[in-house]
Amino acid sequence: MSGRKVQRESARSRLARNLRAIRTSQGISQEELGDLAQLHRTYIGFLERLERNPSLENIERLADALNVDIVDLLAVTR
Amino acid sequence: MSGRKVQRESARSRLARNLRAIRTSQGISQEELGDLAQLHRTYIGFLERLERNPSLENIERLADALNVDIVDLLAVTR
Repeated sequence: MSGRKVQRESARSRLARNLRAIRTSQGISQEELGDLAQLHRTYIGFLERLERNPSLENIERLADALNVDIVDLLAVTR
Repeated sequence: MSGRKVQRESARSRLARNLRAIRTSQGISQEELGDLAQLHRTYIGFLERLERNPSLENIERLADALNVDIVDLLAVTR
Protein backbone atom coordinates (compact mmCIF):
# COMPACT_ATOMS: atom_id res chain seq x y z
CA MET A 1 0.00 0.00 0.00
CA SER A 2 2.58 2.54 1.04
CA GLY A 3 5.16 3.26 -1.62
CA ARG A 4 7.81 0.89 -0.42
CA LYS A 5 9.25 0.83 -3.89
CA VAL A 6 12.45 2.82 -4.04
CA GLN A 7 13.18 4.72 -7.20
CA ARG A 8 16.09 2.86 -8.67
CA GLU A 9 18.43 3.68 -11.47
CA SER A 10 17.89 1.25 -14.34
CA ALA A 11 20.57 -1.27 -15.18
CA ARG A 12 20.92 0.33 -18.58
CA SER A 13 21.55 3.72 -17.00
CA ARG A 14 24.07 2.31 -14.54
CA LEU A 15 25.97 0.67 -17.35
CA ALA A 16 25.97 3.84 -19.42
CA ARG A 17 27.28 5.95 -16.55
CA ASN A 18 29.91 3.51 -15.36
CA LEU A 19 31.07 2.69 -18.86
CA ARG A 20 31.63 6.32 -19.73
CA ALA A 21 33.24 7.13 -16.38
CA ILE A 22 35.67 4.21 -16.48
CA ARG A 23 36.43 4.66 -20.17
CA THR A 24 37.20 8.36 -19.85
CA SER A 25 39.18 7.84 -16.63
CA GLN A 26 41.43 5.55 -18.65
CA GLY A 27 41.71 8.08 -21.46
CA ILE A 28 40.19 5.70 -23.98
CA SER A 29 37.95 6.91 -26.80
CA GLN A 30 34.75 5.12 -27.80
CA GLU A 31 36.52 4.01 -30.96
CA GLU A 32 39.48 2.60 -29.05
CA LEU A 33 37.21 0.78 -26.65
CA GLY A 34 35.32 -0.67 -29.58
CA ASP A 35 38.59 -1.97 -30.99
CA LEU A 36 39.69 -3.40 -27.65
CA ALA A 37 36.37 -5.15 -27.05
CA GLN A 38 35.83 -6.10 -30.68
CA LEU A 39 32.56 -4.23 -30.74
CA HIS A 40 31.60 -1.51 -33.18
CA ARG A 41 32.58 1.98 -32.17
CA THR A 42 29.05 3.21 -32.65
CA TYR A 43 27.78 0.48 -30.34
CA ILE A 44 29.79 2.00 -27.47
CA GLY A 45 28.06 5.31 -28.12
CA PHE A 46 24.67 3.64 -28.21
CA LEU A 47 25.35 2.04 -24.82
CA GLU A 48 26.51 5.29 -23.30
CA ARG A 49 23.29 6.92 -24.50
CA LEU A 50 21.13 4.07 -23.10
CA GLU A 51 20.06 3.16 -26.61
CA ARG A 52 20.87 -0.54 -26.55
CA ASN A 53 20.03 -3.51 -24.34
CA PRO A 54 23.35 -5.35 -24.40
CA SER A 55 23.87 -9.04 -23.83
CA LEU A 56 25.73 -10.29 -20.80
CA GLU A 57 28.63 -11.40 -22.95
CA ASN A 58 29.03 -8.02 -24.58
CA ILE A 59 29.11 -6.42 -21.14
CA GLU A 60 31.76 -8.95 -20.17
CA ARG A 61 33.83 -8.06 -23.24
CA LEU A 62 33.68 -4.40 -22.26
CA ALA A 63 34.72 -5.21 -18.69
CA ASP A 64 37.62 -7.29 -19.96
CA ALA A 65 38.68 -4.56 -22.36
CA LEU A 66 38.66 -2.00 -19.54
CA ASN A 67 40.31 -4.39 -17.10
CA VAL A 68 37.52 -4.09 -14.57
CA ASP A 69 35.05 -6.54 -13.16
CA ILE A 70 31.65 -6.78 -14.79
CA VAL A 71 30.16 -5.75 -11.45
CA ASP A 72 32.03 -2.43 -11.70
CA LEU A 73 30.07 -1.67 -14.86
CA LEU A 74 26.74 -2.30 -13.15
CA ALA A 75 27.31 -0.91 -9.68
CA VAL A 76 25.41 1.97 -8.18
CA THR A 77 27.95 4.70 -7.64
CA ARG A 78 27.50 8.01 -5.92
CA MET B 1 54.98 -12.69 -20.69
CA SER B 2 54.27 -14.29 -17.36
CA GLY B 3 50.71 -15.51 -16.97
CA ARG B 4 49.33 -12.50 -15.24
CA LYS B 5 45.89 -13.45 -16.44
CA VAL B 6 43.85 -14.84 -13.61
CA GLN B 7 41.44 -17.62 -14.37
CA ARG B 8 38.09 -16.01 -13.93
CA GLU B 9 34.61 -17.41 -13.74
CA SER B 10 32.62 -16.32 -16.78
CA ALA B 11 29.77 -13.87 -16.32
CA ARG B 12 27.39 -16.52 -17.60
CA SER B 13 28.59 -18.97 -14.96
CA ARG B 14 28.35 -16.39 -12.19
CA LEU B 15 24.80 -15.61 -13.19
CA ALA B 16 23.83 -19.27 -13.31
CA ARG B 17 25.26 -19.98 -9.89
CA ASN B 18 23.88 -16.89 -8.16
CA LEU B 19 20.51 -17.21 -9.81
CA ARG B 20 20.07 -20.78 -8.65
CA ALA B 21 21.41 -20.06 -5.16
CA ILE B 22 19.19 -17.04 -4.58
CA ARG B 23 16.14 -18.64 -6.16
CA THR B 24 16.40 -21.83 -4.09
CA SER B 25 17.20 -19.88 -0.90
CA GLN B 26 13.86 -18.16 -1.41
CA GLY B 27 12.10 -21.45 -2.01
CA ILE B 28 11.03 -20.40 -5.50
CA SER B 29 10.81 -22.88 -8.38
CA GLN B 30 12.06 -22.09 -11.87
CA GLU B 31 8.45 -21.95 -12.96
CA GLU B 32 7.49 -19.51 -10.22
CA LEU B 33 10.46 -17.31 -11.02
CA GLY B 34 9.49 -17.36 -14.66
CA ASP B 35 6.03 -16.15 -13.70
CA LEU B 36 7.41 -13.45 -11.41
CA ALA B 37 9.85 -12.14 -14.00
CA GLN B 38 7.52 -12.68 -16.96
CA LEU B 39 10.05 -14.94 -18.61
CA HIS B 40 9.44 -18.44 -19.81
CA ARG B 41 10.02 -21.15 -17.22
CA THR B 42 12.35 -23.01 -19.56
CA TYR B 43 14.41 -19.85 -19.99
CA ILE B 44 15.27 -19.90 -16.27
CA GLY B 45 16.54 -23.45 -16.68
CA PHE B 46 18.58 -22.47 -19.71
CA LEU B 47 20.21 -19.67 -17.75
CA GLU B 48 20.99 -21.93 -14.80
CA ARG B 49 22.64 -24.36 -17.20
CA LEU B 50 24.68 -21.58 -18.88
CA GLU B 51 22.85 -22.17 -22.13
CA ARG B 52 21.77 -18.61 -22.86
CA ASN B 53 23.40 -15.22 -23.17
CA PRO B 54 20.74 -13.04 -21.55
CA SER B 55 20.20 -9.36 -22.18
CA LEU B 56 20.84 -6.83 -19.45
CA GLU B 57 17.14 -6.13 -19.16
CA ASN B 58 16.26 -9.78 -18.65
CA ILE B 59 18.86 -9.98 -15.90
CA GLU B 60 17.29 -6.89 -14.37
CA ARG B 61 13.84 -8.49 -14.48
CA LEU B 62 15.19 -11.52 -12.66
CA ALA B 63 16.85 -9.33 -10.03
CA ASP B 64 13.61 -7.41 -9.53
CA ALA B 65 11.60 -10.64 -9.28
CA LEU B 66 14.00 -11.97 -6.63
CA ASN B 67 14.18 -8.62 -4.85
CA VAL B 68 17.94 -8.42 -5.13
CA ASP B 69 20.26 -6.04 -6.87
CA ILE B 70 21.46 -6.94 -10.35
CA VAL B 71 25.00 -6.92 -8.95
CA ASP B 72 24.04 -9.74 -6.59
CA LEU B 73 23.32 -11.90 -9.63
CA LEU B 74 26.73 -11.24 -11.13
CA ALA B 75 28.99 -11.17 -8.09
CA VAL B 76 31.81 -13.56 -7.43
CA THR B 77 30.79 -15.41 -4.32
CA ARG B 78 32.73 -17.79 -2.11
